[in-house]
Amino acid sequence: MPKLRVALAQLDPVVGDIAGNANLVLDAARRAHAAGAGIVAVGEMFLTGYPAEDLLYRDSFADASRAELARLATRLRAEGLGEIAVVTGYYDLDGPLTRGPDDGTGGGPRNAAALLYDGQVVTKYFKHYLPNYGVFDEDRYFNRGDRLPIIRLGLPDGDVDLAIVICEDMWATGGPVTAAGEAGVNLVLSINASPYEQTKSDGRLELCQRRAREAGAPLAYVNILGGQDELVFDGDSLVVDAHGELLARAAQFAEELLVVDLDLEPARSTVDGELAAMAVERLRLELPAVPPITSPALVRVAERLSADGEVWSALVLGLQDYIKKNGFRSVVLGLSGGIDSSIVAAIAADAIGPANVVGVSMPTKYSSDHSQSDAADLAKRIGLDFRIVPIAGFVEAINGELGFTGLAEENLQARLRGAIVLMGLSNSEGHLVLTTGNKSELAMGYSTLYGDSCGGFNPIKDVLKTTVWRLSRWRNEEAVRRGQTPPIPENAISKPPSAELRPGQLDTDSLPPYEQLDAILSGYVDGDLGRADLLAAGHDPAIVDRVVRSVDLAEYKRRQSAPGPKITGKAFGRDRRLPMTNGWREHG
Amino acid sequence: MPKLRVALAQLDPVVGDIAGNANLVLDAARRAHAAGAGIVAVGEMFLTGYPAEDLLYRDSFADASRAELARLATRLRAEGLGEIAVVTGYYDLDGPLTRGPDDGTGGGPRNAAALLYDGQVVTKYFKHYLPNYGVFDEDRYFNRGDRLPIIRLGLPDGDVDLAIVICEDMWATGGPVTAAGEAGVNLVLSINASPYEQTKSDGRLELCQRRAREAGAPLAYVNILGGQDELVFDGDSLVVDAHGELLARAAQFAEELLVVDLDLEPARSTVDGELAAMAVERLRLELPAVPPITSPALVRVAERLSADGEVWSALVLGLQDYIKKNGFRSVVLGLSGGIDSSIVAAIAADAIGPANVVGVSMPTKYSSDHSQSDAADLAKRIGLDFRIVPIAGFVEAINGELGFTGLAEENLQARLRGAIVLMGLSNSEGHLVLTTGNKSELAMGYSTLYGDSCGGFNPIKDVLKTTVWRLSRWRNEEAVRRGQTPPIPENAISKPPSAELRPGQLDTDSLPPYEQLDAILSGYVDGDLGRADLLAAGHDPAIVDRVVRSVDLAEYKRRQSAPGPKITGKAFGRDRRLPMTNGWREHG
Repeated sequence: MPKLRVALAQLDPVVGDIAGNANLVLDAARRAHAAGAGIVAVGEMFLTGYPAEDLLYRDSFADASRAELARLATRLRAEGLGEIAVVTGYYDLDGPLTRGPDDGTGGGPRNAAALLYDGQVVTKYFKHYLPNYGVFDEDRYFNRGDRLPIIRLGLPDGDVDLAIVICEDMWATGGPVTAAGEAGVNLVLSINASPYEQTKSDGRLELCQRRAREAGAPLAYVNILGGQDELVFDGDSLVVDAHGELLARAAQFAEELLVVDLDLEPARSTVDGELAAMAVERLRLELPAVPPITSPALVRVAERLSADGEVWSALVLGLQDYIKKNGFRSVVLGLSGGIDSSIVAAIAADAIGPANVVGVSMPTKYSSDHSQSDAADLAKRIGLDFRIVPIAGFVEAINGELGFTGLAEENLQARLRGAIVLMGLSNSEGHLVLTTGNKSELAMGYSTLYGDSCGGFNPIKDVLKTTVWRLSRWRNEEAVRRGQTPPIPENAISKPPSAELRPGQLDTDSLPPYEQLDAILSGYVDGDLGRADLLAAGHDPAIVDRVVRSVDLAEYKRRQSAPGPKITGKAFGRDRRLPMTNGWREHG
Repeated sequence: MPKLRVALAQLDPVVGDIAGNANLVLDAARRAHAAGAGIVAVGEMFLTGYPAEDLLYRDSFADASRAELARLATRLRAEGLGEIAVVTGYYDLDGPLTRGPDDGTGGGPRNAAALLYDGQVVTKYFKHYLPNYGVFDEDRYFNRGDRLPIIRLGLPDGDVDLAIVICEDMWATGGPVTAAGEAGVNLVLSINASPYEQTKSDGRLELCQRRAREAGAPLAYVNILGGQDELVFDGDSLVVDAHGELLARAAQFAEELLVVDLDLEPARSTVDGELAAMAVERLRLELPAVPPITSPALVRVAERLSADGEVWSALVLGLQDYIKKNGFRSVVLGLSGGIDSSIVAAIAADAIGPANVVGVSMPTKYSSDHSQSDAADLAKRIGLDFRIVPIAGFVEAINGELGFTGLAEENLQARLRGAIVLMGLSNSEGHLVLTTGNKSELAMGYSTLYGDSCGGFNPIKDVLKTTVWRLSRWRNEEAVRRGQTPPIPENAISKPPSAELRPGQLDTDSLPPYEQLDAILSGYVDGDLGRADLLAAGHDPAIVDRVVRSVDLAEYKRRQSAPGPKITGKAFGRDRRLPMTNGWREHG
């Protein structure tokens, strides 16, 4: 019975850094080869990173991707890695850069996978199913493929048939995995760029299990890792056998080279030509140098994170990669003593270390004593670079001339903090400014444009206020479990939220209680429910109308807000696009 | 020979205001009926407005669109308009709100047209070709249709066969217009939501002519009008005969009810069932009450605007609708005496009248004398509400504490102007803040985040600096032609551009000469050319590298910038999406 040691390299590419990403593949091949693997795979569109968006419209970008693929094959052989099969995602251009109708016959730009061996590009596969919903816009950029190469691998102890598919291909019933199963392949390799999303079930594993059973073959699933603007790819690569049994699973939110030994059925496929509306192409690849498996690989099934641990990791990795990939080394944020800035400081410290986090308290005459003492306590617990810049004098100097009152005066304070002090420190010292508005505020438009919303990244953009509290408690408990100081002062968690822009102000003056607000937002924003559905779910009609009206009117502020890691099905950002000019009034 | 008076109602709907848009249809039907028309048509997705984006994901929105359609049919009859056929675009949901693969069989959400008559929805048509490029995301929102209703209209003097198609359907060779031609229809009615884009040719007319000749039938093309966020729909509805001869054409950038009398061939179509991969459905509609055409309609072929006149109109209408549809009545902007703020003030005055435009001069110690005198001259020429708010004292108060120097000090001035003074005036007095960065600056990131980029709308976001100059001269000449005062001071046009944020500063300290810069930007941004292409076009390599590097690094600033009317193929905004985290370096 043929045996194959398969390595899945779960790595963090940088969109656009084609040469750097190729180096990551080369390094993974080196490690996989050293570990005795016969084949190693990296994720979807790995050479270009995912999603490359409108870079894909440039001929020069497509040329660079294809040239790098050929160079990678050559370099692998030159470095003595010609005898390990390498599968990588990349961007191909099949003929001229014209995007035809989505009929699979037009040539053009392709979401592609290549198998490299002995200095050659042995075969290419073009993704069949192009997702065009949520965060995906693949119909915009790619033409769909309609070929299914079946690669007969001549292993030392017998032949096996391999099929390669890409991400969404696996989600389609009747798609390439189904066809590969009908063709009788012995192994399916799926390369993916699948972003994290909070779910209650383990859908990724379940899908792999179902498809493996349907195909009657083991399935190896490799995902990319890392933050890319608002997306966070969580890794979680895995391998199941033909019965759907989980054989190996990589960490979530961390790089890993997952290695597994597979006992494969001998090759039996005879299909050639048309099958299930795709053109099956057969080819043979001799792998004479695959080392015999003398001792079993260290199989690993990584423990899954808790629900809160997953979210925390997504926020930390999303921030960490945004900082690193954009060339920053430190961050600055305003510390109000409230829970939102406190949790962001804790996330930032976990992402880049407390020494690289600058926290600034900027009191005015409306600031409470606890706003300053809680901020100082937080800074001490975390060990960050804490500064105090009183802005009361600035407010006076400006308002003495302009005489702003009411909302204009409130906003003036927030703008002096965000646009003047924090952005000035960013310009002077090179920090990335973090903004700290939670999803509930953002939904309601409860923030100051060019004020507290100033900044390059918002780690809690997709986190509802009630989740901010829950995660804060979780992070503190986690610290206790690890014998560390809980980072977030208890008072920041327990005190009533206030913007402190006028005397005695509380969030509840302007917003419904957060428990009710977040329940309604979950339905209206994440669930696309209408007013009638929300009333049927038992929410207070007056509050529903208030929330719905505010959400409908706040789109402009949301469009002007900083990006942040997406953790839900409907984040405000890439996968949610409302008109700014919008006459729709859901409320009665 | 059957005759039919056709009315095309070129109107400005508001996205989401379904009831208001239905009222527009009702009013158009009333006017068309009064003009003796037998049929009247409005544009694509008229009841919902276009593009409705993620509103389309809500069941409540789909329900409202369908309910309004039925109510509209009833209201038309109730108001004595049952005997005119009314064709309108709307949003339909054909079965449950599930988006299937793009195979035309899945039911689900539809970009739809309906024909209303005598209180009934007589037939529905679902768009076949869903554009998913440039500003269009229709694969995201709709499932494609595969039916082609052919409606036999029983007119008093004979029968004719009518086919209705929607926008992109007309652009596809082999699509519904081709099929309608093969089926032998006598009239094609095309409803559209087709945004303005600067072109050298009259592509819209040419397409209508080609399709009419292919179909061997007259073609009536109706477009919507108006600004919707970054899109400007330019109207330009038209009718050609079966030989492609232009019979009638409506104004660009203005509402119009275009009425034309058509001599139609008698019905001859016998096709039923499958044709060109679409299901032809035949139905008959008696129109006994169509009034005889006793005197010919006042046929109109509107004069076309000049190239510069088109662009000016697009900028004015885009701004006007953004202000109006978002409930503002006035605007405020900073006046530096430079050309960018001067042209924006002129556009704003043309859009909403000079009395509703507030211009603020905000000098610092670096401001030149001419910056203030040119601003005052402009304000006087236009007649706008001019104010002077010196900010030198604010700079001193803040910088005395914080000691910002260099870039931080430059940005401080811009932020005090934009975020503190203009936004404060907006909060106090209710004006929309206009921001005035041109496309060349935006491309290069030559602006201050939360400074001069503050504001809700930017009328010249898609206008290169050299075009700003050209349009300014055009507008002044136009004033002379009309015997009015040219709005823009000659000195604002002719002096060298400067941000005046440090002593003696000129744009050319930081940017290449604008003639060279704009030529490179046209290639790199609008043309998706690569570095090699730009060098091959003869541009200076050092300047190319400088431009390309700056453009690649400025995406975050662009994402944070205000919307503005799109006039080119590649505006920064809706139809251009680069990664913010972007390791691609086109330059060597």
